[in-house]
Amino acid sequence: MDSLSERATSRPDPATVSHIAAILKERFGERATTSDAVREQHANTLTWVENQPPDVVVFAETTEEVADTVKLCASHRVPVIPFGTGTSFEGHTNAPFGGVCVDLSRMNAILAVHPEDLDCVVQPGVTRKVLNEHLRDTGLFFPIDPGADASIGGMVGTRASGTNAVRYGTMKDNVLALTVVTPAGEVMRTSRRARKSSAGYDLTRLIIGSEGTLGVVTEVTLKLHGVPEAISGGVCPFPSIGAACEAVIATIQSGIPVARIELIDEVQVRAVNAYSKLSLREEPQLFLEFHGSEAGVTEQAARFGEIATEFGGGPFEWTTQAEERTRLWQARHDAYWAAMALKPGWKGFSTDVCVPISRLAECVEETKRDIAESGLIAPIVGHVGDGNFHVLPLVDPNDDGAFANAMAFVGRLVERALAMEGTCTGEHGVGQAKMKYLEAEHGAPALDAMRAIKRALDPLNIMNPGKIVDV
Amino acid sequence: MDSLSERATSRPDPATVSHIAAILKERFGERATTSDAVREQHANTLTWVENQPPDVVVFAETTEEVADTVKLCASHRVPVIPFGTGTSFEGHTNAPFGGVCVDLSRMNAILAVHPEDLDCVVQPGVTRKVLNEHLRDTGLFFPIDPGADASIGGMVGTRASGTNAVRYGTMKDNVLALTVVTPAGEVMRTSRRARKSSAGYDLTRLIIGSEGTLGVVTEVTLKLHGVPEAISGGVCPFPSIGAACEAVIATIQSGIPVARIELIDEVQVRAVNAYSKLSLREEPQLFLEFHGSEAGVTEQAARFGEIATEFGGGPFEWTTQAEERTRLWQARHDAYWAAMALKPGWKGFSTDVCVPISRLAECVEETKRDIAESGLIAPIVGHVGDGNFHVLPLVDPNDDGAFANAMAFVGRLVERALAMEGTCTGEHGVGQAKMKYLEAEHGAPALDAMRAIKRALDPLNIMNPGKIVDV
Repeated sequence: MDSLSERATSRPDPATVSHIAAILKERFGERATTSDAVREQHANTLTWVENQPPDVVVFAETTEEVADTVKLCASHRVPVIPFGTGTSFEGHTNAPFGGVCVDLSRMNAILAVHPEDLDCVVQPGVTRKVLNEHLRDTGLFFPIDPGADASIGGMVGTRASGTNAVRYGTMKDNVLALTVVTPAGEVMRTSRRARKSSAGYDLTRLIIGSEGTLGVVTEVTLKLHGVPEAISGGVCPFPSIGAACEAVIATIQSGIPVARIELIDEVQVRAVNAYSKLSLREEPQLFLEFHGSEAGVTEQAARFGEIATEFGGGPFEWTTQAEERTRLWQARHDAYWAAMALKPGWKGFSTDVCVPISRLAECVEETKRDIAESGLIAPIVGHVGDGNFHVLPLVDPNDDGAFANAMAFVGRLVERALAMEGTCTGEHGVGQAKMKYLEAEHGAPALDAMRAIKRALDPLNIMNPGKIVDV
Repeated sequence: MDSLSERATSRPDPATVSHIAAILKERFGERATTSDAVREQHANTLTWVENQPPDVVVFAETTEEVADTVKLCASHRVPVIPFGTGTSFEGHTNAPFGGVCVDLSRMNAILAVHPEDLDCVVQPGVTRKVLNEHLRDTGLFFPIDPGADASIGGMVGTRASGTNAVRYGTMKDNVLALTVVTPAGEVMRTSRRARKSSAGYDLTRLIIGSEGTLGVVTEVTLKLHGVPEAISGGVCPFPSIGAACEAVIATIQSGIPVARIELIDEVQVRAVNAYSKLSLREEPQLFLEFHGSEAGVTEQAARFGEIATEFGGGPFEWTTQAEERTRLWQARHDAYWAAMALKPGWKGFSTDVCVPISRLAECVEETKRDIAESGLIAPIVGHVGDGNFHVLPLVDPNDDGAFANAMAFVGRLVERALAMEGTCTGEHGVGQAKMKYLEAEHGAPALDAMRAIKRALDPLNIMNPGKIVDV
């Protein structure tokens, strides 16, 4: 395999960088930059993962510009790193081998809305909030909600999900088709706009979750959903995290079509109370939301209330008033910043795992014990209807042992989830930080298949190299 | 690429066949056979596609037996063709380059049911009816219903869907994980049992719909759903096929969570009346089913009735009585055999396409005109809530021009669907017969990507060669 010897596995030499940068500046003017500040902003900034800036940042405005940039990079064996809003956690946007970051935030047009087909076509830089604002008068909405106001392209990359996934699925369930610039700089359509198809390999799902390692997404056809006639929601305290998890399991098993069911542990409740000016009881809390008809959402809320009581929880205080619900959910969405505010100046070690729901209570309780024994401050929040939860160990950057302590904790968390038939990440993705867990999760044959796919589609290894799998 | 010269692109020579057959008979006894009758039964039998039998048929009973058979075939560059129930339509089980058919029907164990996680683990030879029979006392069911009592493994292969897909999705939405024997004979797990994951490339979805060309599925973890508290269903005539389709579009757009919405045109109604002893009005009919609470299914049926009236249809006669619904749905499920009975001795040319639902009425009406102008007898049935419909041109085997006439009709049908942003197959798959349409549907870059994946995962081209893409 001669081409392997030409693959990008180290930073391009300074002469190549200068040459590429000059060509890009010639073509894109001020939309191509080598400024230190801009390069650093385009590498990992949100978590403990070391910032590894690209050599050049290009602000692309069309699929053709992306394709031309990729072709240029391919011809010089220079890496290409796609960038949306930079809100990922696992080092996805880092450039360990340098290269050109393609910032897609200016490709933010909503190209078409087809209310009659319940779909729309958007550029990758559109954020989920902008899309939903645009859809407001159509009676439709896009449900995937990972917390951050991420870009749709980035959400494709990490197979994002979030609070609504228990009812509406994840990105894999809500994308109909993609336009992708391939590692050779060709423009590929992965599918048609029909709701379903059996016409060949599922390239759409292969790109979703591939974190920019197989191409740059430049257009996304999304499924939309009707805004529910009525919404009810509320908050319910529980005497223990185990009781809260058991109530979640019973709710899912009873077939209540809950739209959101979120766990916030007592550490996170303290953080949220302080940050969002709430006065929730400092106990584990479940945040819930129900979508349906007026009668339906009332019935669902009442049924959940009964389940909560069975497990010693409650009172379940709920409302169909939009304003009160919005305030609660804002608090949930601010959870990350609220947690970070517990220890100003400390670093967050955001991580997530997902287990079959029957193991959820056990997994969360063991994790709480582990946190206590490790002396960590580590709030837990979770999309627990899917068996998915997040832990955010906070690390004092001036304490030498703290980083290793948190890292070891994450390793045990993953090990625990895998032992329960779970996954090392339910929605954050692999990036750089979780690569080391993939062999334990998938086994050698599956990992070999992933590597073979990466080599086949990106033989020069220029597409976001050093993420998901090493090849 | 030296290995390409060793790839399976012609039938193995007789000496190799004898050698392989002898080894397999030694290992499997009567479970390996070269009998003409058995070989022919394991190639395409249901449609016009020419029967191309394998050289040997092996009835495997364990993953290990499949793996050993694949390893043996790989070492002699002999094709492997997985076989479930043989109910596919596009020549999927044919052996154009000979080889060993691995019949998985004896791998029919239900390995685990996890009611608390709403999932189960089955071997590929379990059929959907057997699975639902097994689940009867759990309050759970597996919704995917392609008509035939297909095997779960085969349904994975073709990315099957059917009548319930409008509410419950297709196989791609209802499989959590697979065990796959790779083309090298290794045993690969594609995923864990967690409800969601962002841990690397989506191998599960890549295998679903790959029609046995990337490996042999030997274990499937399926999502299950709660049996609805109440079901209502019924039949509604319409004055024209256009009016029926418009009613479908309005129903989907209005957000009624219909579980099944099936179109049967007047030709098929005549066939069904004769075959299933019904007396439906010989007009286009919609068959519907609603799942939910007692109050919910009554409300949904009433709302649909109003929509039908708006489009000149009705009366919508519906019931919550199980017996009457079962009789109706049996008639729908017998549609294929009822159509074939219109012309005993003739061949069926079963085909399907799928378009965005806003184009459905137009596509079906143009197709009806085309059928009339072509002088074909070709009933239409469809899972129209997804924009998916089937046409079954019947061909007199003694009429030399009839075959070409039907073939040309299918070509125009696909062209029409593609022009409307649709797909050449919504659920039957590509097999041999639809390969020629893939370039027009996907374009060269996507087809190149599919070929690259096939070459990367099956470098010897032994897994069901001559299907989906030529490499």
